[in-house]
Amino acid sequence: MNREIHLASRPTGFPEDANFKLVERPVPDIGDGQVLVRNVFMSVDPSMRGRMNDVRSYVPAFQVDEPLQGRAAGVVVRSNHSAFREGDAVSGSVGWREYYAADALTLTKVDTSVAPLSAYLGVLGSTGFTAYVGLLDLGKPHPGETVFISGAAGGVGSIAGQIAKLKGCRVVGSAGSAAKVAFLKDELGFDAAFNYREANLDDALRESCPKGIDIYFENVGGDHLRAALERMNQFGRIPVCGMISQYNDATPPPGPANLVNIILRRLTVTGFIIIDHEDRRPAFVQDMSTWLRAGLIKNKETIVDGIENAPRAFMGMLRGENIGKALVRIGPDPVR
Amino acid sequence: MNREIHLASRPTGFPEDANFKLVERPVPDIGDGQVLVRNVFMSVDPSMRGRMNDVRSYVPAFQVDEPLQGRAAGVVVRSNHSAFREGDAVSGSVGWREYYAADALTLTKVDTSVAPLSAYLGVLGSTGFTAYVGLLDLGKPHPGETVFISGAAGGVGSIAGQIAKLKGCRVVGSAGSAAKVAFLKDELGFDAAFNYREANLDDALRESCPKGIDIYFENVGGDHLRAALERMNQFGRIPVCGMISQYNDATPPPGPANLVNIILRRLTVTGFIIIDHEDRRPAFVQDMSTWLRAGLIKNKETIVDGIENAPRAFMGMLRGENIGKALVRIGPDPVR
Repeated sequence: MNREIHLASRPTGFPEDANFKLVERPVPDIGDGQVLVRNVFMSVDPSMRGRMNDVRSYVPAFQVDEPLQGRAAGVVVRSNHSAFREGDAVSGSVGWREYYAADALTLTKVDTSVAPLSAYLGVLGSTGFTAYVGLLDLGKPHPGETVFISGAAGGVGSIAGQIAKLKGCRVVGSAGSAAKVAFLKDELGFDAAFNYREANLDDALRESCPKGIDIYFENVGGDHLRAALERMNQFGRIPVCGMISQYNDATPPPGPANLVNIILRRLTVTGFIIIDHEDRRPAFVQDMSTWLRAGLIKNKETIVDGIENAPRAFMGMLRGENIGKALVRIGPDPVR
Repeated sequence: MNREIHLASRPTGFPEDANFKLVERPVPDIGDGQVLVRNVFMSVDPSMRGRMNDVRSYVPAFQVDEPLQGRAAGVVVRSNHSAFREGDAVSGSVGWREYYAADALTLTKVDTSVAPLSAYLGVLGSTGFTAYVGLLDLGKPHPGETVFISGAAGGVGSIAGQIAKLKGCRVVGSAGSAAKVAFLKDELGFDAAFNYREANLDDALRESCPKGIDIYFENVGGDHLRAALERMNQFGRIPVCGMISQYNDATPPPGPANLVNIILRRLTVTGFIIIDHEDRRPAFVQDMSTWLRAGLIKNKETIVDGIENAPRAFMGMLRGENIGKALVRIGPDPVR
């Protein structure tokens, strides 16, 4: 049997257990040109929260009584396509279940001699790629500039900060616990970090960014955006990757009252979604592989075991319980 | 004697007469390398409102009991510099007074055979230059795209809309009176325009931008920004020129609650100030002169006579009483 997580109902605020349902279905058959994949890891992404709502967006909304979806990495268990063999490690886009039948063209073979399977959902996958494009292409960092990252201990933030350090920037992060602040400073080498749940954001930014902020890598929105706008330097850049503080609000709160700083300080605010930047993937893969081999980037993961615990992992991620990339291990990893 | 308008006190909300003071001073002497200019026109700009506040910004704040400043155009009445002769038409940055002594290097000679003196404060001056850079360099229009302009009947908006028409765009404007709406549609050839004081913004944008908005040229802020964010197309651009709806708020109102659209629709929001774009001035002057000669751009002005009426003209502009560029005629125009 194949265990899947379905959307039982749409949440109206913060998701709860009742919005999810564990369903058993037969393991699917595969047709011509298809491959049966056993998922080993699935990605737990903030953007999945938006897909639980019934709105038109850049990806289809999840449907009630249908399985959820999302990036996953696993192994081929049966193949009707010459390019894939049993045992091949692959990444794909059909998570939240144990097995799935994939058209071969939707799968990407990954090399577990370069990095473990899970890395292809994190530092070497969309998460790292998002950090890379957002920081480098949109942030355009110069040595000596100050980069402030909200949600800095999360999957994207922790990679973006490390890339900024490699580019010679002063890197400052906000995060939601003392353990995360210690992780940013002690393990990732951030120049400064603070716990936004305890600090006054304005005071914390004044102290940690004495020369102002040149790049604000936006993951959080809300009061973080307001405080950053007060501290931005002229010609600053704000790549907008996420606004997780608002994803669980049934009615989003008003925006910051100081948007006029966008004019006064000549800021560029750019929203982006990684699916639009495939042309940059080869450069990303090459750079990130090099950095990983050289030990210049650390890949931190928070792994929850068991498909039945995927909703808990997802809600935990929304509460900020993960450090680094949030993943669910769905089954045994044959590589490790 | 030289009549000047001084800042009598800083306004805390909408400016009032008591914030201004007409002062008589002797006409200044000129030193070596200086030129005495008689102002004929002065520009009345929204950005002057910000300079009345005691805040650090990209230009110095006006000082209480000192004359106000701003762009002006006039004629040389006495010169201690070989490059300027009596009768030369010039533009400079010392308005709100009848005469001033200028270092010759701060003046720009203008050619009144190409366009009348007033045009060098409007369509051929910073106003037109702002529209040009904002629309072309930041808006990046493509033929067939929809451009929405708020404050469209103002100095910058009315030029930006006409440039967008020249580039083959569908151009939609919002303005604050029926007369302005008629001006936009009948005189400037906008494809659609509406009176935001009477229309529902969302309905008006849905009707006038059936294919969505690709470029929102932002002059107004507040609810205009919210409504535009709801109607933007993917990869849309928002050049942010002004947020005049907020300039007179002692406490600015909260921003729009739908900033997450910046991510979902991959928008680029760019604040700009024209002083940063001097490298583009030669191209602007050449293009705009060509367009004016060919009758492709109309230069609409609202002129108030008399330096003593400059505060009234300024407050009227903040209330939206002008159509096209707001100017004060300080003295007789020898060119006309």
